[in-house]
Amino acid sequence: MSTGKIRRPRAETPKGFRDYFGAEVGARNTMLAAIGAVYHRYGFDALETSAVETVEALGKFLPDVDRPNEGVFGWQDEDADWLALRYDLTAPLARVAAQYRNDLPSPYRRYAMGPVWRNEKPGPGRFRQFYQCDADTVGAPSVAADAEICMMLCDALEAVGIERGDYVVKVNNRKVLNGVMEVAGLAGEDREAERGIVLRAIDKIDRLGEAGVRALLGAGRLDESGDFTKGAGLDGAQVEVVMGFVSAETKIEDELRAKASRPKAIGDNAMVSYLGSPTNWNFEVSDYLTNLVADSAIGLEGVTELAEISDLLRQQGYESDRIRLSPSVVRGLGYYTGPVFEAELTFEILDEKGRKRQFGSVAGGGRYDDLVKRFTGQSVPATGVSIGVDRLLTALQAKGRSIGEAAGPVVVTVMDRERMADYMGIVGELRAAGIRAEVYLGNPKNFGNQLKYADKRGSPVAIIQGGDEAARGTVILKDLILGAQIAQSATLEEWKVRPAQLEVARADVVAAVQRMLRA
Amino acid sequence: MSTGKIRRPRAETPKGFRDYFGAEVGARNTMLAAIGAVYHRYGFDALETSAVETVEALGKFLPDVDRPNEGVFGWQDEDADWLALRYDLTAPLARVAAQYRNDLPSPYRRYAMGPVWRNEKPGPGRFRQFYQCDADTVGAPSVAADAEICMMLCDALEAVGIERGDYVVKVNNRKVLNGVMEVAGLAGEDREAERGIVLRAIDKIDRLGEAGVRALLGAGRLDESGDFTKGAGLDGAQVEVVMGFVSAETKIEDELRAKASRPKAIGDNAMVSYLGSPTNWNFEVSDYLTNLVADSAIGLEGVTELAEISDLLRQQGYESDRIRLSPSVVRGLGYYTGPVFEAELTFEILDEKGRKRQFGSVAGGGRYDDLVKRFTGQSVPATGVSIGVDRLLTALQAKGRSIGEAAGPVVVTVMDRERMADYMGIVGELRAAGIRAEVYLGNPKNFGNQLKYADKRGSPVAIIQGGDEAARGTVILKDLILGAQIAQSATLEEWKVRPAQLEVARADVVAAVQRMLRA
Repeated sequence: MSTGKIRRPRAETPKGFRDYFGAEVGARNTMLAAIGAVYHRYGFDALETSAVETVEALGKFLPDVDRPNEGVFGWQDEDADWLALRYDLTAPLARVAAQYRNDLPSPYRRYAMGPVWRNEKPGPGRFRQFYQCDADTVGAPSVAADAEICMMLCDALEAVGIERGDYVVKVNNRKVLNGVMEVAGLAGEDREAERGIVLRAIDKIDRLGEAGVRALLGAGRLDESGDFTKGAGLDGAQVEVVMGFVSAETKIEDELRAKASRPKAIGDNAMVSYLGSPTNWNFEVSDYLTNLVADSAIGLEGVTELAEISDLLRQQGYESDRIRLSPSVVRGLGYYTGPVFEAELTFEILDEKGRKRQFGSVAGGGRYDDLVKRFTGQSVPATGVSIGVDRLLTALQAKGRSIGEAAGPVVVTVMDRERMADYMGIVGELRAAGIRAEVYLGNPKNFGNQLKYADKRGSPVAIIQGGDEAARGTVILKDLILGAQIAQSATLEEWKVRPAQLEVARADVVAAVQRMLRA
Repeated sequence: MSTGKIRRPRAETPKGFRDYFGAEVGARNTMLAAIGAVYHRYGFDALETSAVETVEALGKFLPDVDRPNEGVFGWQDEDADWLALRYDLTAPLARVAAQYRNDLPSPYRRYAMGPVWRNEKPGPGRFRQFYQCDADTVGAPSVAADAEICMMLCDALEAVGIERGDYVVKVNNRKVLNGVMEVAGLAGEDREAERGIVLRAIDKIDRLGEAGVRALLGAGRLDESGDFTKGAGLDGAQVEVVMGFVSAETKIEDELRAKASRPKAIGDNAMVSYLGSPTNWNFEVSDYLTNLVADSAIGLEGVTELAEISDLLRQQGYESDRIRLSPSVVRGLGYYTGPVFEAELTFEILDEKGRKRQFGSVAGGGRYDDLVKRFTGQSVPATGVSIGVDRLLTALQAKGRSIGEAAGPVVVTVMDRERMADYMGIVGELRAAGIRAEVYLGNPKNFGNQLKYADKRGSPVAIIQGGDEAARGTVILKDLILGAQIAQSATLEEWKVRPAQLEVARADVVAAVQRMLRA
């Protein structure tokens, strides 16, 4: 029984979601196809898992309530299972690696591209559905797998149009971080709270600066608003160990500068060339880190891995201008267990306030050896990278790369609706020649509307054939791109030299359009 | 507080969902890209809406409960909105057409490809997530838009590898069906129940045959199990009108056969050629239907539209061998308001019981003039088609089209893990030459495992360089495809002529692999 009057539904994308139109879809697909080709050439196989997973497989479930937590979109299925939309592409990979472990090759290299969903508060530029593009190797314990991921990430960035010199893949190792903790006397289960505070403090270096991080490592930090954040309570020596790690890159740069300036005859240029020299940076970093974690076995293991990665890469021609050991990268406070990577774009863009800043991170990843274990109980080594598709697209636009830009179709106007078959015939010939073309299918009465439509479609050429032209066996071609230019700025001379409109024989329409599109 | 012991999560795809691996993903993407290129050439723009819609925008909401109905996966958002996964690509298009009506060109031609979700009981071959691939024109009232969709559907099928003659696009018109109802005395709001029974009966013609449909049009039908289905209660004359529509094609074929057989000198072959003659079938159908609905204005309007569509198409070279008026197509008892289309593949395949049967429908659509009205209150004409992506892929496989078949990578084995950089160097050279290649990244100790791995990867060539080869400056290439053939069937002679294994200079590895891949 219907009650009350009918209310019309709102025509709205749900909050935090968005629609992609025409060229936006094309640009993303073109970019993903280029990345996919690189991944494929590296031997990675495509995998497309279902968008829906059981909540228990995703591993996002609050133990004290019967509803999945707020990070995911979840619902209860009829058979009482909780289902949810995947929030990333790594959790489904761990499930697949466990589910098909007897059938998949081992190691299993796979790539995946697709939307993921996050049940978070939407904000400007923050959406609840967005694309990820991942590549992972499951079952390869050696750092050669990590090195391969880093090389492939470089190749993928170059394949989509980020030039060498405009990006750097920074590499660090969680084991080194663990070693630093050990040296600072923060090992052991009873120190987990302090380690948490230290990790969060390190992660804030960009925002708080060295002084702010020091405060958080010590007693605590009073911010501008007067709020006090309790610190980790480290003593002076402990703080120095951690800060030696946090500000390693600045320190190494200073040392290199000092070394380079010693022999006066060489001077600043020599220092720059020394700093810029491909092999030295990564060597200096592993040297520095070796000293820093000399008393920690796990720390030294991490440094050795970094040196191995950097050696393997250097031997393949990937020097530190592209892949750079970087202790400041502490990303992924979550499940990473070994090497971590982050791809940064180094060119400058203007932010929303018109200030210059580096574009920053577009991809990140690392080694996570325990995700599959959740399912099988057996540890399975894995490493991988995830590219932030929307950020990389934004970067390409900022660099003026017009990937996948959609050309508007040639529009054949309708002067006489009885002759629709003739107009469709023109369109058919153009398409057969590979030219994107369409006939106007709205109400043809108002011819002005047809030209407005062609304009809205970004059409390069409009084709007109009224009764007179039909009788003469001709059509009129309007060069809409030239027309727009003339309307804006052209002189009468220019207009005369290259008319924006010409009449050609019906039989020559395809050739004439081709000439106009090439002009 | 954690209670009890930790239970490992099950590594399972949720019921009714599936994962796609490697070549399956590639085949689908290749097919969709080919279809997208045709749509694009026709002037259609890509649109990718969010997977999530408000339930009110989807229009699937039971009025008497506060939960969305079982057809969709839905959940309540924090701000009390009900959200759901889209169940098709048409409902989101209607929302977009209403939401952006001031910005979109009109008419708006768009195509969309992507997964949709149905909360239905899963079964063999029935999944709760599957792909659709749609093209629609919104805002074009003329049948030229319907004709264009039909042409484009033909072109799309041919673009993916369905040959002309292996498919037919059947076209009918809901207005003719309405006219038949009118002639049968079933017009008017008070006859809605009977019309429903009649529509459902017509839809069952394939399963029940003429006798079963006749029973359902009359008093009712007793099935084999003894269950009785109440009929529409039509009298004899009414039944004849409806059956004249249902079995129109058989009747027309009979008439043509009779006509053709009259002049004996012409005989059967002439009849066949008459039946097969491109222009005549569609002419005969519209002639027959005109007689059938002569007393119904709406019916005649429908027949006129069919004749116009068929004329337009014939003039573009799409004759009734490809596009065929077909009164038996009554698809979409839902929202269609005018022409309806269905693409059928006419070649035979073997069903699960080994019986020959026609492949059947792979795409369908029609005109739906009222979907946007739900949002805006204004009627907006729209027409479109949806391709069943999985069914079309199955059809291509049945025809032996190996689209997007993934070639396995060349596998470089690891004989000496200290020389990983050398192996990565070989792989790098192969990739630079465009050859898919990878180094073995598992535990290299057991060489047999490495060859098993290469086999599982479908690798065409394995490359081996042990200490001896390295000292000699050579590598060994194993032709794994030839190796497999030899293992199966080759004679000793063949083995000698073309060895499955050869040693080449390290510097020649790329050229040698290229030769082996071409062989």
